[in-house]
Amino acid sequence: MAYILAVNAGSSSLKLTLFVPSGNLSAQPLVHHLTASITSISSPPAAFTVKPAESDVGSSPEKFRDIKDHSTAFSHFLEFLERDCGIDKSKIGHVCHRVVHGGKYDEPVVVNEKSTSQIARLSDLAPLHNGAALSVIKVCSDALPNAVSVAYFDTIFHKSLPPHIFTYPINPEIAHERGLRKYGFHGISYAYILNAVSKHLSKPSSSLNLILLHLGSGASACCIRSGKSYDTSMGLTPVSGLPGATRSGAIDPSLIFHYTNKANKITHDPTLVVDVPVTLAEDVLNRKSGWKVLCGTTDFAEITEKAELHRPDTDGNEYRLAFDIFVDRILDYIGAYAVKLEGKVDALVFSGGIGEKSWQLRKVVSERVKCLGFPAVDEDANKKGGSGIWDIGLDSTEKRILVCETDEQYEMARQLHETFIESK
Amino acid sequence: MAYILAVNAGSSSLKLTLFVPSGNLSAQPLVHHLTASITSISSPPAAFTVKPAESDVGSSPEKFRDIKDHSTAFSHFLEFLERDCGIDKSKIGHVCHRVVHGGKYDEPVVVNEKSTSQIARLSDLAPLHNGAALSVIKVCSDALPNAVSVAYFDTIFHKSLPPHIFTYPINPEIAHERGLRKYGFHGISYAYILNAVSKHLSKPSSSLNLILLHLGSGASACCIRSGKSYDTSMGLTPVSGLPGATRSGAIDPSLIFHYTNKANKITHDPTLVVDVPVTLAEDVLNRKSGWKVLCGTTDFAEITEKAELHRPDTDGNEYRLAFDIFVDRILDYIGAYAVKLEGKVDALVFSGGIGEKSWQLRKVVSERVKCLGFPAVDEDANKKGGSGIWDIGLDSTEKRILVCETDEQYEMARQLHETFIESK
Repeated sequence: MAYILAVNAGSSSLKLTLFVPSGNLSAQPLVHHLTASITSISSPPAAFTVKPAESDVGSSPEKFRDIKDHSTAFSHFLEFLERDCGIDKSKIGHVCHRVVHGGKYDEPVVVNEKSTSQIARLSDLAPLHNGAALSVIKVCSDALPNAVSVAYFDTIFHKSLPPHIFTYPINPEIAHERGLRKYGFHGISYAYILNAVSKHLSKPSSSLNLILLHLGSGASACCIRSGKSYDTSMGLTPVSGLPGATRSGAIDPSLIFHYTNKANKITHDPTLVVDVPVTLAEDVLNRKSGWKVLCGTTDFAEITEKAELHRPDTDGNEYRLAFDIFVDRILDYIGAYAVKLEGKVDALVFSGGIGEKSWQLRKVVSERVKCLGFPAVDEDANKKGGSGIWDIGLDSTEKRILVCETDEQYEMARQLHETFIESK
Repeated sequence: MAYILAVNAGSSSLKLTLFVPSGNLSAQPLVHHLTASITSISSPPAAFTVKPAESDVGSSPEKFRDIKDHSTAFSHFLEFLERDCGIDKSKIGHVCHRVVHGGKYDEPVVVNEKSTSQIARLSDLAPLHNGAALSVIKVCSDALPNAVSVAYFDTIFHKSLPPHIFTYPINPEIAHERGLRKYGFHGISYAYILNAVSKHLSKPSSSLNLILLHLGSGASACCIRSGKSYDTSMGLTPVSGLPGATRSGAIDPSLIFHYTNKANKITHDPTLVVDVPVTLAEDVLNRKSGWKVLCGTTDFAEITEKAELHRPDTDGNEYRLAFDIFVDRILDYIGAYAVKLEGKVDALVFSGGIGEKSWQLRKVVSERVKCLGFPAVDEDANKKGGSGIWDIGLDSTEKRILVCETDEQYEMARQLHETFIESK
């Protein structure tokens, strides 16, 4: 039995899911075997959790001091597989890796000697976002030399963006030469959601107009027109668009220069301004912004709890401010995308950690988009939650409001299975 | 007879309008006497045009080599007044100056010895946008020592923005200390338009929900809720939001670092990255971007003409790309603001040089927002134009589509008249 391993490296986490082909192509072609999560990699000791497919909950996290980085986290997982599950690593026939920024790649890339150096260059492109994934690709190729490894890029899904949307109004020669354009991210997640919505609504994906929200510590929105990405909120890098746990989202592009000067005010005084290095700008905008700095926590559930959502007036409540900012920027994209779709929207879909869990956020957002023709929220369906994909609108005759549990690992494994196994 | 002079300094232009109080407060309290425009100040010879109030067209532009900057342009105007119009400068009792960025000022400021140094500091805040106005304030105070001079800031109109809209998701202490927030601009124009719409619809301005578009070589959108600015597209500086003739508008905040490096690609290689000074960033984003770099012209009429708007497919037509980008970003704000107003929009208003002149742009934008409940465009009313303020929607029962000729000089003079003359 050949396993497919899907690897999803975040900046301080590593998720690994082992799949087995089901042999039943018409239904679900792949079956989850187990998922391991390693968190707090950059603030040791890292925590290791395992969730077998038949279980609803994972094991209690175990702390491991020997996990120092993404490479050692990956090796730890392989040892665990062999020791605790009796699965020899040689049984892993295929590995799929999620890489955030694919630059010019518009297809997944099989990892081999020739492509490895090309893929390595992607780390120069976006060290903040690709670094972890690329280090895992390397250690994986060494540890599993006979497995077929494929890199899946979050940017691929957005290759359908039209020129007037992906083009920034900047010098076109420089933009073309340097690859300065809107790429968009969360594409593997959006591909999964699009498929799930297509099945749920029993409509071919090519007929669907959707507004998708992937709301997590990194958050984005995507406008799907006729089954393809037509616009998305992130840009050249994931920092643009919606704010996140530690990310600023769209801000005035000149702000960083006034943030970093030596004056305590906006200034152009040559003795006080600071020439800003890219690393400082990226650090501030990606890691030192977002709701963490607004109210002290990255936990959106805590923000929601303390935001006093029942009160109309909460001056000075920083949790409420963070909540309201997030809702406001989400609404901006929903309004913009509804117009892009000329009002013909099949569904608004909430996904990602916050989108799937925060019924409060879903309620507030849904109420504010009623003016676009969305139905009122079914309080029960919204609060009690569900699994897979479910409706939360009271009326599901026309515009639907859905929640979808996204699964990037499954999506990569499904694509890999379709390309490399099923077709043979 | 005491004149009111309204001064409007652009980066390379100076507009001066002389008003006379009409004595009739219930109708139009002020009457235009004449308007002078001086253009191409930064690319001499500058051109001087005069349009008396009773004339529809201005004089043929005369070129003057002695106009070298905004100060000499202002002096030239005073000499012209005396020599050609027989108006001695001592007859100018009040002067209002438009200043783009008012920083923390939330009221207009009377220019006097005490305030002059404070106002001068605003040049440090935004040299690119305030520099010209501040140099004119200085020369004006010297030339007209007995006139009451008042500085009107474009930012004042937006002091009603709520915290969750003016707050950037960045470190709040640093933001507060340095004044890093959304300010918004074109406020004098928006104040004029709001008044004009209120009169046109015979409704008090405090009852109005509007989506205002000031579309010129600098362009912005404003969401008016209950007669107050609730959101606007420009931010800390005018560079954010919509693109303009030479301005990028909203782009990924990390883009400038990849634009300016020494590699021909996105890179973080320490030997190739460049630490970016604020002046370089502002120069690129304000002066070396926008439709000028996309298609070679700042003239939107030329863009519209060459954009082949009748063809659905215009791959490679850079005029069409520039046109489509502008329309796309405008639609984004209209959609977002319609949701902010919960669909209750009294009117969508086109204004500014492009908004007032380009029936093609109005047609394309209006057609795309029908899904928000706006009526179809009345082709005749849209094409033939009008004066003051006029409807271009076929059905003017509910949501209106209006064109409004904005008049920043009039708005300043009106406010000045109300505060300093009428109330006495």
